[in-house]
Amino acid sequence: MNGAESLVHTLLGSGVDVCFSNPGTSEMHFVAALDRIPGMRCILGLQENVVTGAADGYWRMAEKPACTLLHCGPGLANGLANLHNARRARSGIVNIVGDQAVYHRPFDAPLTADTTGWAQGVSAFVRTSTRAEDVGADAAVAVQAARTSPGQVATLILPSDSSWNEGGVVAKALPVPAVPEADPHAVRQVAQVLRGKRNVLLLLGGLALREGAQQQAHRIAAATGAKLMCEGSSARVQRGRGRLPLDRVPYVVEQATEALKWVEHLVLVNAKAPVGFFGYPGKPSILYPAGAEVHVLTRLDQDAEAALAALADELGAPKAAIPDPGPRPEAGRGALSPEGLAQTVAALMPEGAVVVDEAVTYGRGFFPHTNAAPAHDWLQNCGGAIGYGPAAATGAALAVDGRRVIALQADGSAMYTVQALWTQARERLPVTTVLLSNRKYQILLGEYRNVGANPGRTAMDMLDLGNPDLDWVRLANGMGVEAAKAETLDQCADLMAQSFARPGPFLIELLI
Amino acid sequence: MNGAESLVHTLLGSGVDVCFSNPGTSEMHFVAALDRIPGMRCILGLQENVVTGAADGYWRMAEKPACTLLHCGPGLANGLANLHNARRARSGIVNIVGDQAVYHRPFDAPLTADTTGWAQGVSAFVRTSTRAEDVGADAAVAVQAARTSPGQVATLILPSDSSWNEGGVVAKALPVPAVPEADPHAVRQVAQVLRGKRNVLLLLGGLALREGAQQQAHRIAAATGAKLMCEGSSARVQRGRGRLPLDRVPYVVEQATEALKWVEHLVLVNAKAPVGFFGYPGKPSILYPAGAEVHVLTRLDQDAEAALAALADELGAPKAAIPDPGPRPEAGRGALSPEGLAQTVAALMPEGAVVVDEAVTYGRGFFPHTNAAPAHDWLQNCGGAIGYGPAAATGAALAVDGRRVIALQADGSAMYTVQALWTQARERLPVTTVLLSNRKYQILLGEYRNVGANPGRTAMDMLDLGNPDLDWVRLANGMGVEAAKAETLDQCADLMAQSFARPGPFLIELLI
Repeated sequence: MNGAESLVHTLLGSGVDVCFSNPGTSEMHFVAALDRIPGMRCILGLQENVVTGAADGYWRMAEKPACTLLHCGPGLANGLANLHNARRARSGIVNIVGDQAVYHRPFDAPLTADTTGWAQGVSAFVRTSTRAEDVGADAAVAVQAARTSPGQVATLILPSDSSWNEGGVVAKALPVPAVPEADPHAVRQVAQVLRGKRNVLLLLGGLALREGAQQQAHRIAAATGAKLMCEGSSARVQRGRGRLPLDRVPYVVEQATEALKWVEHLVLVNAKAPVGFFGYPGKPSILYPAGAEVHVLTRLDQDAEAALAALADELGAPKAAIPDPGPRPEAGRGALSPEGLAQTVAALMPEGAVVVDEAVTYGRGFFPHTNAAPAHDWLQNCGGAIGYGPAAATGAALAVDGRRVIALQADGSAMYTVQALWTQARERLPVTTVLLSNRKYQILLGEYRNVGANPGRTAMDMLDLGNPDLDWVRLANGMGVEAAKAETLDQCADLMAQSFARPGPFLIELLI
Repeated sequence: MNGAESLVHTLLGSGVDVCFSNPGTSEMHFVAALDRIPGMRCILGLQENVVTGAADGYWRMAEKPACTLLHCGPGLANGLANLHNARRARSGIVNIVGDQAVYHRPFDAPLTADTTGWAQGVSAFVRTSTRAEDVGADAAVAVQAARTSPGQVATLILPSDSSWNEGGVVAKALPVPAVPEADPHAVRQVAQVLRGKRNVLLLLGGLALREGAQQQAHRIAAATGAKLMCEGSSARVQRGRGRLPLDRVPYVVEQATEALKWVEHLVLVNAKAPVGFFGYPGKPSILYPAGAEVHVLTRLDQDAEAALAALADELGAPKAAIPDPGPRPEAGRGALSPEGLAQTVAALMPEGAVVVDEAVTYGRGFFPHTNAAPAHDWLQNCGGAIGYGPAAATGAALAVDGRRVIALQADGSAMYTVQALWTQARERLPVTTVLLSNRKYQILLGEYRNVGANPGRTAMDMLDLGNPDLDWVRLANGMGVEAAKAETLDQCADLMAQSFARPGPFLIELLI
């Protein structure tokens, strides 16, 4: 058995059975092993940021890692931005990065690069398997690292001779480390805060945004009057009927400080204390009041649902049903607006849909209008590197097998991983992309005006996506995805409903 | 004056007047400074690998650096693969990478990443300007580093507060370091080899492939019987009538060792001793005979033309005219073949064209059929990270202002930086892309068969680009580039001739 074969067997034995890939020469023995050994579903992406972003989306919905197959340092580099997003979303991914043969690397052949150095910035685990004998054991550790709460990026670098040499040993799956429980002292301390203090915010992140944890959080809020919010961006929020109508911490600094100005006690549940996405002259970095006390109920890796349940019990909080969100919205009519689009999505989405949200500026207000939608999952870009959406939608669709994925996608961001549409067509994935075509980097125009100037010709050359306008119908068609344009909410609703009724991907270019 | 303004003035004063950019929030003050201060041509790329690859192509033809404008660590990461290619091509580039404000970075906001660590793998110079007062001086050093022979990637990280704070100081341009001369001892030693030994190969790289250096090399070859070749991939070879009909070191290991098996003395002129692109089981890493002696006439940074002239003089070699390459080929007719396509390009290309070659497998034999073309420049991918072509063609076109760029481009590679077509349309660049559509990763199918197996279903899922077929006419049209399909050499020739007669970009999808 060669090293590559031991790798495939070990991955499969460790529960990793999807491989998002863009291989190269140094990975051919691994590809051959995948071909010979049944069990791994291999999905080609035409650029590595599609590959890594898909693995992120897959983890969020499948709750187990996929592996990626990347070609040398530059192949890893192409996928780093979405690995950065995955790291921020705390997604588990096992990267397999092929590299020069151990004996060949010193010759500094053209593709030789700083594979390890590039991996370190995104990975909780980086190891190079320099012998075929080690590949299986290293892979088992990599999978364990990826599955370590709350989810981590693990990168295994595989020199081609470690792949082709005989001597491979299949390793048994290592146990998934238990999710650490909250410190009972932290639970008691937060209970004391909730009993004695006013103006308490429980900020929910990570697994605290799943349905079970939300129910416990709601018990606490109902019993104490504490407020509940989620972070500005979350990896996966369970939303819609039966879930909490949570507000996000706003993106814009002024709006965030306004929304949080009442907070005296900030309780973190799998969340980070909110800070600005960027620093701005004369504006604060920290979005909550300087005098507020911060309390950690659970660290990012700890069991939020159990801690919230323990806290609710400690408080003697009775069971509390999550209130009815009112009637489901009707699809919007007439002229486009963010609210109308959100209502249309809420009106039409099938039960159990997955919304992948990279709507950026247009989507900041979508949440309040979708609370009364059927139960669904909502995924956001947690790292701010644009181009997460088309890729994550692809991976999420593969994870949920048949459930509809609705990608709410800004145009500038979509161009970063436009190649993902081809994978959606190839795999016939039920992804409906609502492409928000405003033909500019709207977020930057806003930021530019913040600088205190109106953009002139040179600035517009860098902020405007028109001249020429991107034609998203042709782009999608060119990659085998059916598409149509919409200029009104009625047209958008019609196309959305049609696409939900059919298998396979569809793109709606919405001229906003 | 703020730091951003001092940066723009310093760059302009140092001769950097083109900025390939994809800015974000943290760069808005720099964008505002570019808007206020005239002189910088700003070119938007819709993904950063377009931006960095364009800067590479620009350097190769302009012989001076452009700057890039990249957004935080992830923006840099997206451009790393083409920076890797630029490093291998020894291109000078000044990266300006915006980053979190110095005081904001410790808060670990979502886009915060290992900007420095990622830059180091491709950069000869990395510095973070942590004070507005330092930005100008740091920029001057960065430009000097980029212009240091043979050309280097320099990365200046610009925290947003260093950009917006007052106190900026414009720095004077630093002198471009002189190109080091060859060691006279090396010249004499190589002369001795050429006088006394047989089977000598002069391997030319870098600036040894420019017309003047070629003339000197030809004197030496004519006087001594030494052979001349160029490396497997070169940043820029001056070719066609009046230039040498050089052969490349073949890519395939068996072909390369066969082509070099006669070599007893290998003389390196701005070149590296040839090694395989990859290691393969049972095949050598080194492509020249184990017993051959290697002599360095010039290191990568030394003055090749002067050294070759000194060597020719030392040998008493008379002037020697580069021989006539024979009649210009006629455009091919009928069925497609690599030779026919090369002849068609040679038959139709305008004088002074720039060929950007990322034809990969299909293009390995193009050189012999284009020797009798008019004088032209030929640019290749030196780092092996695919996706260099569409981006480099864009940058090269901007550098040569009106000369026709002919991009010979494989489809799998083109998908990596497909967004470059939009920049070509926006800037109305005279780029004719011949898109070689074979709908597979042909190079990998060959490598896979080398593994000793025929690809099964799973392997083909990762090597085949069909299902669905990419429609390049629609993709190009979707980004504002006119395009048409060709299936025969006649159709290709007609479209090529038409495109050469018109301004602006055109794409020919050639179904090979």
